[in-house]
Amino acid sequence: MIRDNIIELFSRDLPHVKINSSAEFLEKYGNDTLKLIKGSPLLITFPKTTEEVKQIVDFANKNMIGIVPSGGRTGLSGGAIGFKNEIIVSLEIMNKLIEFNEVESTLEVEAGMITQSLQDMARANNLYFPIDYAAVGSSQIGGNIATNAGGIHVIKYGMTRSWVMGLTVVTGNGDILKLNKGLIKNNAGLDFTNLFIGSEGILGIITQAIIRLTEIPKNQKAFFVGFNSLKNVTEILNVVKKKTRLLAFEFFTQTALEYALEEDTFSYVLEEKHKYYVIFEIEGTNDISYDSELTDDIVSSLFNEELINEGIIGANHADRSLIWKHREHIPISLNKHYPYKNDISVRIKDIPDFIKNLDTLLDSKYNELVVAWFGHIGDGNLHVNIPKPIGLSIQEFKSICDDLSEDIYKLIQKYEGSISAEHGVGLIKKKFLHFSKSPVEIELMKSIKKIFDPKGIMNPNKVI
Amino acid sequence: MIRDNIIELFSRDLPHVKINSSAEFLEKYGNDTLKLIKGSPLLITFPKTTEEVKQIVDFANKNMIGIVPSGGRTGLSGGAIGFKNEIIVSLEIMNKLIEFNEVESTLEVEAGMITQSLQDMARANNLYFPIDYAAVGSSQIGGNIATNAGGIHVIKYGMTRSWVMGLTVVTGNGDILKLNKGLIKNNAGLDFTNLFIGSEGILGIITQAIIRLTEIPKNQKAFFVGFNSLKNVTEILNVVKKKTRLLAFEFFTQTALEYALEEDTFSYVLEEKHKYYVIFEIEGTNDISYDSELTDDIVSSLFNEELINEGIIGANHADRSLIWKHREHIPISLNKHYPYKNDISVRIKDIPDFIKNLDTLLDSKYNELVVAWFGHIGDGNLHVNIPKPIGLSIQEFKSICDDLSEDIYKLIQKYEGSISAEHGVGLIKKKFLHFSKSPVEIELMKSIKKIFDPKGIMNPNKVI
Repeated sequence: MIRDNIIELFSRDLPHVKINSSAEFLEKYGNDTLKLIKGSPLLITFPKTTEEVKQIVDFANKNMIGIVPSGGRTGLSGGAIGFKNEIIVSLEIMNKLIEFNEVESTLEVEAGMITQSLQDMARANNLYFPIDYAAVGSSQIGGNIATNAGGIHVIKYGMTRSWVMGLTVVTGNGDILKLNKGLIKNNAGLDFTNLFIGSEGILGIITQAIIRLTEIPKNQKAFFVGFNSLKNVTEILNVVKKKTRLLAFEFFTQTALEYALEEDTFSYVLEEKHKYYVIFEIEGTNDISYDSELTDDIVSSLFNEELINEGIIGANHADRSLIWKHREHIPISLNKHYPYKNDISVRIKDIPDFIKNLDTLLDSKYNELVVAWFGHIGDGNLHVNIPKPIGLSIQEFKSICDDLSEDIYKLIQKYEGSISAEHGVGLIKKKFLHFSKSPVEIELMKSIKKIFDPKGIMNPNKVI
Repeated sequence: MIRDNIIELFSRDLPHVKINSSAEFLEKYGNDTLKLIKGSPLLITFPKTTEEVKQIVDFANKNMIGIVPSGGRTGLSGGAIGFKNEIIVSLEIMNKLIEFNEVESTLEVEAGMITQSLQDMARANNLYFPIDYAAVGSSQIGGNIATNAGGIHVIKYGMTRSWVMGLTVVTGNGDILKLNKGLIKNNAGLDFTNLFIGSEGILGIITQAIIRLTEIPKNQKAFFVGFNSLKNVTEILNVVKKKTRLLAFEFFTQTALEYALEEDTFSYVLEEKHKYYVIFEIEGTNDISYDSELTDDIVSSLFNEELINEGIIGANHADRSLIWKHREHIPISLNKHYPYKNDISVRIKDIPDFIKNLDTLLDSKYNELVVAWFGHIGDGNLHVNIPKPIGLSIQEFKSICDDLSEDIYKLIQKYEGSISAEHGVGLIKKKFLHFSKSPVEIELMKSIKKIFDPKGIMNPNKVI
């Protein structure tokens, strides 16, 4: 069998590289959080150094085998799936701190470090890594960078892109590049750092990164409000934005919330149920009396303008945590229902209009599906989730959802929005990329891939 | 003559495009602020629309003529020089506001808008465009983006890159690309926006941009301090950084200051002269009493730790302006002396060590040259300026400075720093690029240029 031959060849050529090809490992490391497609990789490898990653890439080039870089596999677009006979390169063992630099407030780490470990390391040094979302406990920083992860704090802190000061990568051609090297100002030639950020493994493998940290936000307050008219959501956003700077602004529907509540891991904290909800968080100042005046002002404005029916505020850590559970548990619970996920964005100015049209589309043409919406409205990003109805097969369900996606993406195209705001294109959105990118842009991307990966071994069948 | 033939051909093919080929225009639009090399372009063109820019690019491809995109020509690396027989594409007429969007705090503009006009438009809407440096009165936003301009506020606000939400570009191949389109979150494929930012016109021409604005900083205070030991500079930085967030932190030497003072446009505001100076600016809060406590604390710490010999604070606009003149007039005055400029950066953590070694190098090997240093120490960026001694010809002077540059860049290479922190590579630093980039990276850049500009017409002889 070819499969066995390659594994034998790999063990002979690279005996020092840790591998595993058991069914259990192939299943675990060959798939990501997208459950609608099943991977079938050849071999799982666990390099310990950038040099070993290079050796694996060289081996793959020599033998014309595909490579899939693998972080925490929390991706939702199938970008880390070993689709067919690839070598999976797990960065799991490369999870070490290389250097913390106090003067710079930077952390240099290997790509396999768990996002939450990086957050914790920052906190331990009285600093803050602001990229945050439900899966940080298992996602890795390399994966965050390769997918330009977003999450709930983008409205203030930007995407992962904003925090990367340097990268070490192994290109598909087997070249080791050290990009930007921690410099704040560097205009010496074309910027490859940003080209690799969000490239989803099609150009190469990220093995190390220098990450910038920032100050810990102080005296945060989380507000949890409920209301019954969809159009209120952007008005609430505008009212709060005018008064203060937001750390987060998350919207979700009652349908979405019910998934979070179904597992009974926490108790609902508002008194009544509403059709729509927003959780928003604001940063405090050094001046507590100013902060509480501001809080009163925000709450009374929202009630006076009849934008909310009910609301609570959480100021201490425990109260804020409890409020946030209502949002965080939505994707966690939904993932058990084989959801079809759309992760779309439009410009902030287009949000009210877009939401209205999307609502009409879902209501008129897809009202037999349960649709759970939630999203980072503050930065133009909406997640439209459809759990698989129990009676349908995965194939039947995918076909209906492909139709729906096509309809949603046509609307996105009209608004010049993105078919992938933060999840990436991966395996599942490749065929829809043309709704966000022109044919010329897609051709240019293919040409750029060829430069870094002339034999096309890097994450085959993904993105373009 | 070929020259006349091309001009005739251009007028016949594109009669609607405004052109000028008078000696005066060729001189004015064929050169930038780098005075050490003289341009010799063929023709100056003034397109009115993106479509006209495309037509010029198509004409250049058809006739195999180089194109030089031209903004305010305030660049210091010769990136906008029409080196030999190129068509200059001035964006000067394309300077209009397309849209201000209040909900988003964005400005959509044509690339030829003067940077200061953009700053003023932001202020008129109670918002702030933080890219700021001496030449904003004549530089254009398209040039800022093409060179990823930095300036004095990078320490808080980052480079121009951080403020670009969308670009319209005409590639060297004549394709019009609309990149990112104003989206905050967009992970649909490879990021071309950042590839064009800082690309210095070698991939294409930027014709429009969507720019993000931010809040106006409040209650700023500028501190102007003098001291006599070089090593104090990083200690002052660390003391202030621990206490508050900096808006700017600018270092300069007495030698540099003397150039600023020679024109007598303002009066020196400290009492004594010192060997070194820093101007730093901090942002205030809503709480004035907190602010003045902080100010007192900063000043007493700097004196108690014997880091400064003298210092003043400017709180109102007039006082701050006067303080800043001491820094702003350095490059303005120096430019009249045909200066050779180095614009280098290293990581913050390496600054103390690097400065010491640089000082030793200049002192030991080049002590016959007058060296005027200044720089944005807070973000690792130093400008080493050498005015041309009156007795030397430009050629003799360039040759000495090339030796010095080589020595400085060798030091930079040791620290993995950048040979171009914010000025770009342009014409003059191309031969030194290998000190900051590996041979593989330079080859990759050339390949990427070929994709966007297959015939090599875009800004020939620049960068790579």
